[in-house]
Amino acid sequence: MIIVMSPAAAQTEIDNVVARVTGAGLKVHLSEGKVRTIIGLIGEKKLMAQLPLEAMPGVEKTIAVTAGYKLVSREFKNEDTVIDIGGILVGGANLVVMAGPCAVESKEQLLESAKIVKAAGAQFLRGGAYKPRTSPYSFQGLEEKGLELLAEAKAVTGLKIVTEVVDIQSVPTVSAYADVLQIGARNMQNFQLLKAVGKSGMPVLLKRGMAATINEWLHAAEYIMSEGNFNVMFCERGIRTFEDYTRNTLDLSAVAVLKNLSHLPVIVDPSHGTGVWKLVRPMAKAAVAGGADGLMIEVHPNPAEALSDGNQSLTPDNFQALMNEVGAIAAVVGRKMA
Amino acid sequence: MIIVMSPAAAQTEIDNVVARVTGAGLKVHLSEGKVRTIIGLIGEKKLMAQLPLEAMPGVEKTIAVTAGYKLVSREFKNEDTVIDIGGILVGGANLVVMAGPCAVESKEQLLESAKIVKAAGAQFLRGGAYKPRTSPYSFQGLEEKGLELLAEAKAVTGLKIVTEVVDIQSVPTVSAYADVLQIGARNMQNFQLLKAVGKSGMPVLLKRGMAATINEWLHAAEYIMSEGNFNVMFCERGIRTFEDYTRNTLDLSAVAVLKNLSHLPVIVDPSHGTGVWKLVRPMAKAAVAGGADGLMIEVHPNPAEALSDGNQSLTPDNFQALMNEVGAIAAVVGRKMA
Amino acid sequence: MIIVMSPAAAQTEIDNVVARVTGAGLKVHLSEGKVRTIIGLIGEKKLMAQLPLEAMPGVEKTIAVTAGYKLVSREFKNEDTVIDIGGILVGGANLVVMAGPCAVESKEQLLESAKIVKAAGAQFLRGGAYKPRTSPYSFQGLEEKGLELLAEAKAVTGLKIVTEVVDIQSVPTVSAYADVLQIGARNMQNFQLLKAVGKSGMPVLLKRGMAATINEWLHAAEYIMSEGNFNVMFCERGIRTFEDYTRNTLDLSAVAVLKNLSHLPVIVDPSHGTGVWKLVRPMAKAAVAGGADGLMIEVHPNPAEALSDGNQSLTPDNFQALMNEVGAIAAVVGRKMA
Amino acid sequence: MIIVMSPAAAQTEIDNVVARVTGAGLKVHLSEGKVRTIIGLIGEKKLMAQLPLEAMPGVEKTIAVTAGYKLVSREFKNEDTVIDIGGILVGGANLVVMAGPCAVESKEQLLESAKIVKAAGAQFLRGGAYKPRTSPYSFQGLEEKGLELLAEAKAVTGLKIVTEVVDIQSVPTVSAYADVLQIGARNMQNFQLLKAVGKSGMPVLLKRGMAATINEWLHAAEYIMSEGNFNVMFCERGIRTFEDYTRNTLDLSAVAVLKNLSHLPVIVDPSHGTGVWKLVRPMAKAAVAGGADGLMIEVHPNPAEALSDGNQSLTPDNFQALMNEVGAIAAVVGRKMA
Repeated sequence: MIIVMSPAAAQTEIDNVVARVTGAGLKVHLSEGKVRTIIGLIGEKKLMAQLPLEAMPGVEKTIAVTAGYKLVSREFKNEDTVIDIGGILVGGANLVVMAGPCAVESKEQLLESAKIVKAAGAQFLRGGAYKPRTSPYSFQGLEEKGLELLAEAKAVTGLKIVTEVVDIQSVPTVSAYADVLQIGARNMQNFQLLKAVGKSGMPVLLKRGMAATINEWLHAAEYIMSEGNFNVMFCERGIRTFEDYTRNTLDLSAVAVLKNLSHLPVIVDPSHGTGVWKLVRPMAKAAVAGGADGLMIEVHPNPAEALSDGNQSLTPDNFQALMNEVGAIAAVVGRKMA
Repeated sequence: MIIVMSPAAAQTEIDNVVARVTGAGLKVHLSEGKVRTIIGLIGEKKLMAQLPLEAMPGVEKTIAVTAGYKLVSREFKNEDTVIDIGGILVGGANLVVMAGPCAVESKEQLLESAKIVKAAGAQFLRGGAYKPRTSPYSFQGLEEKGLELLAEAKAVTGLKIVTEVVDIQSVPTVSAYADVLQIGARNMQNFQLLKAVGKSGMPVLLKRGMAATINEWLHAAEYIMSEGNFNVMFCERGIRTFEDYTRNTLDLSAVAVLKNLSHLPVIVDPSHGTGVWKLVRPMAKAAVAGGADGLMIEVHPNPAEALSDGNQSLTPDNFQALMNEVGAIAAVVGRKMA
Repeated sequence: MIIVMSPAAAQTEIDNVVARVTGAGLKVHLSEGKVRTIIGLIGEKKLMAQLPLEAMPGVEKTIAVTAGYKLVSREFKNEDTVIDIGGILVGGANLVVMAGPCAVESKEQLLESAKIVKAAGAQFLRGGAYKPRTSPYSFQGLEEKGLELLAEAKAVTGLKIVTEVVDIQSVPTVSAYADVLQIGARNMQNFQLLKAVGKSGMPVLLKRGMAATINEWLHAAEYIMSEGNFNVMFCERGIRTFEDYTRNTLDLSAVAVLKNLSHLPVIVDPSHGTGVWKLVRPMAKAAVAGGADGLMIEVHPNPAEALSDGNQSLTPDNFQALMNEVGAIAAVVGRKMA
Repeated sequence: MIIVMSPAAAQTEIDNVVARVTGAGLKVHLSEGKVRTIIGLIGEKKLMAQLPLEAMPGVEKTIAVTAGYKLVSREFKNEDTVIDIGGILVGGANLVVMAGPCAVESKEQLLESAKIVKAAGAQFLRGGAYKPRTSPYSFQGLEEKGLELLAEAKAVTGLKIVTEVVDIQSVPTVSAYADVLQIGARNMQNFQLLKAVGKSGMPVLLKRGMAATINEWLHAAEYIMSEGNFNVMFCERGIRTFEDYTRNTLDLSAVAVLKNLSHLPVIVDPSHGTGVWKLVRPMAKAAVAGGADGLMIEVHPNPAEALSDGNQSLTPDNFQALMNEVGAIAAVVGRKMA
C-alpha cells in the first residue's frame, strides 16, 4: 500500500503516520518529492487493511498496489484449474455447455428441455427450483419439488445438474440433488452463503453481481476457496449500465481479465447477459472466441409459454443452430467439446 | 401493460397474442395505427407478469404502465407513515439522527461513541456487530459480543439501537438486542432475508443496493410489507457510477422520488454515500434540505484508530458541528428534531 | 406515442390532453382501464416530439413506441449497406482491418507502422493527426504535418487512410488527405460537426460516445445521413461503467443490436475499448465471431516509445498473431478478408 | 507517478524502466518490497505524461498521484474566485439564480419569462438560441434571431444573459449578445471550443459532461484557463447512471468535491439534473444547503406549451415558491442573494 501525503502535510503529521504504521508491525519506505511525501508500506496485507490511514491528518489518499485475494490468483497457482464434475471436465482446453429453462415449471417442460439440450450436445442441465424475483408476487419456483424433477431429468438423460441455492438452510437439500451449486448475481456478496457453499465442498458456479467489479468478484470467490473448496467457476452474466436496449451489458472483456488474474474457469451466460434472444447466438460465439470455458444458455421447448424469462430463451431449433456455430468456433480456438 | 407489435407483424400473429392474453383471463384493447398495432392489457398484474409475451412471434416489445408493488405506494396509503420506535417517531415532520461507529470494536470505543452522539442530540446509536466485508481476511465484526455491547450502550444512554442483520439465522438474536434491523446494500435483494425480517415485525431500515433502481428498491420493501410488517424505512447510501473520487454517488434525488411514490420514511447516509469525511457535513445539510426524514452518520471517537471505514467517520467535533448545521436547516424546512 | 394518465387524473384533465393533441393535428386512441386512462397518439412523430405532454396536469408519463431516426434503420433499407472506399468494400460479407498507431508521431514511426500493418494484411492505416486529449498539457498531434505524413504512407503502401477530424474548419483539409473521416467518441454529439461531415460526402467512421446509448448513436448517424451522406460506419469503442480494470467496457452486444436495427456496417475497436494490450487479441476474436464488419487496432513499432496510448498498442508480432487468429475465426463465420 | 512492477519482473526490466525514465529527465525513487519493486517518479508531470510506461515489459500498472491540472486547483489559488459579471458577483458568499426557458421560442414567450424570473429575484436569464438535440428532426433553436430576443429581454429587464455556444464560428456572435457563454454537457470535451471560449475572455459556464468524471471536468476548465480566461464557473447537471426514473442522476457531492479541489464557483442545474419538474424544488434546496454558488432553473410561462423540455420546467408559481424556499436556506448557510 502507498500513502500519498497532502502537499500541505506538516512534518509531525508525516511522523504520526509513520509511527502508527510501524507500531502496527509494518515497515515503511519514505519518498520525499518536491511537492509531497509518499510513504510505501511493506508487510502483511491483513495488517494494512485494518489501518484507517485516510482518516489521519495530512493523508490525501491511499493506494492499494496488491490484491486482497490470494487463493484465486494466478500467482498462487499458475496452471488452469480443471474441475471434474462427475467425469465432465470444466476448464483447460474443454468447452462445456449448460442449458435449459430459466425455471423448472413442470415435469413435461423439464424433461422435454433436458432431451432437447442433451440431443444438441450440452453436458449440463440448468433450471431454477428457487427463483429470486424482483416482485414478491412473481412466480418463485417449485422449490424442493423442482429439485426432484431435476434429479429425474438427470436420471433420464445423464446430464449434470446446475441449479441455484438462495440461502444457507437449503444448501444441504440442493447439494443432495445438484452437481453444481449456482450463486446468483444478487447473492454474489451474500458472504454467509459463500462461506456455506465453501464448506459444502460442492462445485460452485459464482455469478457476477450486477454492479460488481472484477476485483470484488475475485474476492467473493476467495470467500468460497478460503473454506477449502477449490471447485469454483466464474459466470459472467452482464453488468448494469445506462444502456437500456439490453437487460444488462455483457462484459466479455471480463473473461480475458479473469484468465489473466486467476486460474479458475469462466463461463458466460449470454441469455441473462443480454435479455434478448436474438442476441444470444452472436454473443455465444463471441464468448467462445474470446476465451470462455463454457456457456450457460436458456432454452425452452416453447419460450412463448415460459413462466419466466421467455423473452431471452432460445427455441430448440435456435439452440441447435447455436451449438453448431459454437462448435465451429471452438474448433479454431483450440477447444474441445465433451 | 402495453404490447407493441412489430410493423411487420402478420394478422395471425396479432390474433395469436390476443388469444393468448384473453385465454389467461385478461381483457385487451386494440389500437391499430398506420404503422403498427398496439395491444393494451386490462386485468390483474399478476396474470400479466407470467405471460412471456416478448417471446411471441410479431411482438416487438412490452411496456409496463403500472408498478408491481402495492403496499409501499402512495396510492395505497396517501398520508406519510410515522413509525414509533420506543417513543421516537420516524417520518412525518420529525427528523431523526442515527450515529455511531461503522463497527462495534470494544466496550470503550462503543460507550464513548454512544455518549458523544447522545450529547450531540442523536436518537439512535448505529454500530455493526456483523460486518459484511469484501475480503474474507478483513475484520468481520464482534458478532453476538457486539450485540451485547450495543445493549449496554443503550442501557447507559437510552439511545435506540440500529444494527445490521446479515442472515436469516441471526434475525431472532439481533431482534433481541436491537430496536431497528438494518438490511445492508448487498442484501437488498436477498429475498429470503427480506421475508424473514418481514415476519419478525421489527422496524427495518432497508438500504439501497449499490446498483438498485428505485423501482427495485420499492419492490424490496414490498417483500417486507407483504409479510405484514409495515415498519419499513428506506436508507439511501449511494449508487455505483463511473465517478471514482467518491466511494459512491449519493443520489439525493431518490429522496424526493420516494416521497412522491411511497408513504414510507427515507433516511440518508452520507458517510457511506460519499466515503469521504470532508463531504459528510455538506451532504447531510443537502439531504435534510431535500426532504430526508433522517440521517445516518458514522462517528468515531478517534477515526484514525477505527477498524473499518475510518476514512469516512467524523470526529466528535465535526459531528457536533454537523448537528448544529443540520438543526438550522431543519428549522427552515419545517422539521423538528426529537 | 402513448400517454399514461395518472390514476387520479380528472376527466377534464383527460379532455385537455385530448384537445391539445388533436389540436396539434394528431389522432388519439383512448383506452379506459379500471385504474387509469391511456391515450395512444397516431400521426407524425415530428408533431408528437414537440408536445410537452408530461407537463400537462394529470399526465403521469409518456412512452415512445417508435424511433426518432429513419434513414439509418433496417426498415428504411433492409439489405446491408456496403461502402466502397477506393475499391475496398466495407460491410456485407467483407471483413476489414484498420490499424496503426494512436498518433502520428514522425515519418519513421508512421512509415514503419504502415509497412507492418500492410504486411500483416490490413487495408486501412489509422493514425491521429489531431488528438483530443484530456489535459491541455498532453501531446495534441502534428496536425496538418501529420496529415501529410499519412498521405505519404498511403503513397508508399497503398493503404487507405482513416483519421479523426475534430472541428468543422478542418473538414476540408482532412478530407483532402484521408479516405475516411473519423468522428471521435467525445464528438459523437457534436451536431455541427456531424452535419459538416454529412455535407462533405466523405465516408465517416462514427465512434460511440462514452456514455451514449445505442439509440442516441443511431440518431447521431441520422444527422450525417440526413445531409445526404450514406457512407456511414459505426465504431464501438467501449462505454464508461464502474469497472475500473479496463479503461472502458467494450459492449460487443452493440454489434448485434446495430445489425438488427440498422443496415450500416459496424467496426469494433478493442484497443480503446479495453485500454489494455493483453485484452486486444481475445476481444478482436470475439468481435469478429459476434458479427463485426471490421476491426480498428492500435499497432506501434515500439509501444514502449509511443507518445500516446502505448499501453494499449500491440507490437508488430502481436498484431501478426491477431491477424492470423482473426482470419481463422472469419473463415468459420463466413467472412472474407480483402 | 508511481510505477508498480510485476512480481515476476526481471532485474533487467526494472533497469530498463529506470533508464527510460531517467533518460527522459526524471528522477526515480526505488522501493524494493518482498513481493515487488515500486518506482516513484519525481519531476515534471508533462514529461511523465508522455511516457508509455505500462507498455514496458515488467510493468504491471502506473498510478498517478498528482493531478494534470494546475490553474483550476486550490493549491494554485487558495481563496474562492469571485467573478464580476456586469456588477453581479458569482462566487464567495453570493448566491445567484439563472432562470428562464430551455429554448427561446418567441418574443412573447421570452419577455414574459424574463419578467417572471426577474420579479422572483433571479439575476440571470437563461434561454437557448442554439439547441443541441438528439434527433436532427427536433426543434434546433432560433439561432441569431434568438440572440436578438435575448438582448431585447436584457434591455427590458436588466437581467444578465447566459446562453449556449455550440461551435467555434458562433463564439463572436454569441459573445456580442450574451454575458455568459454556456458550454453544454455534450461539448465539455470539445477541446477546440474550450480553447475558443478561453480566448474570448468571456465568462464561461462549463456544464459537466454526462459521463465525465470530476477529474476530467477540472481538466476541461484548465483548457479554458490555460488560454488566459479565469472567469470559469462549473455547472453540475447530472450524470448518466442506470437509474431511469430521473433523466440523469444529479451528483450534488460534486459541489463539495469541487469546492475542495478548486477555487472556481459551482452552479447546480436541478432541471436537467432530474428531468422531472416535481423534483426541482427539493433538489434546488439541497444544492444550496450543500454549498452551491448558484442555481440554473428552467421556467416557462406555460410549460405545457414549451417547444422543448416542458416536462422539467417550472410554472411561474412554482418558481416563486422555489425562490422563497431557497432564500430561507441561503440565510442559514451564510449566503446572500443579490
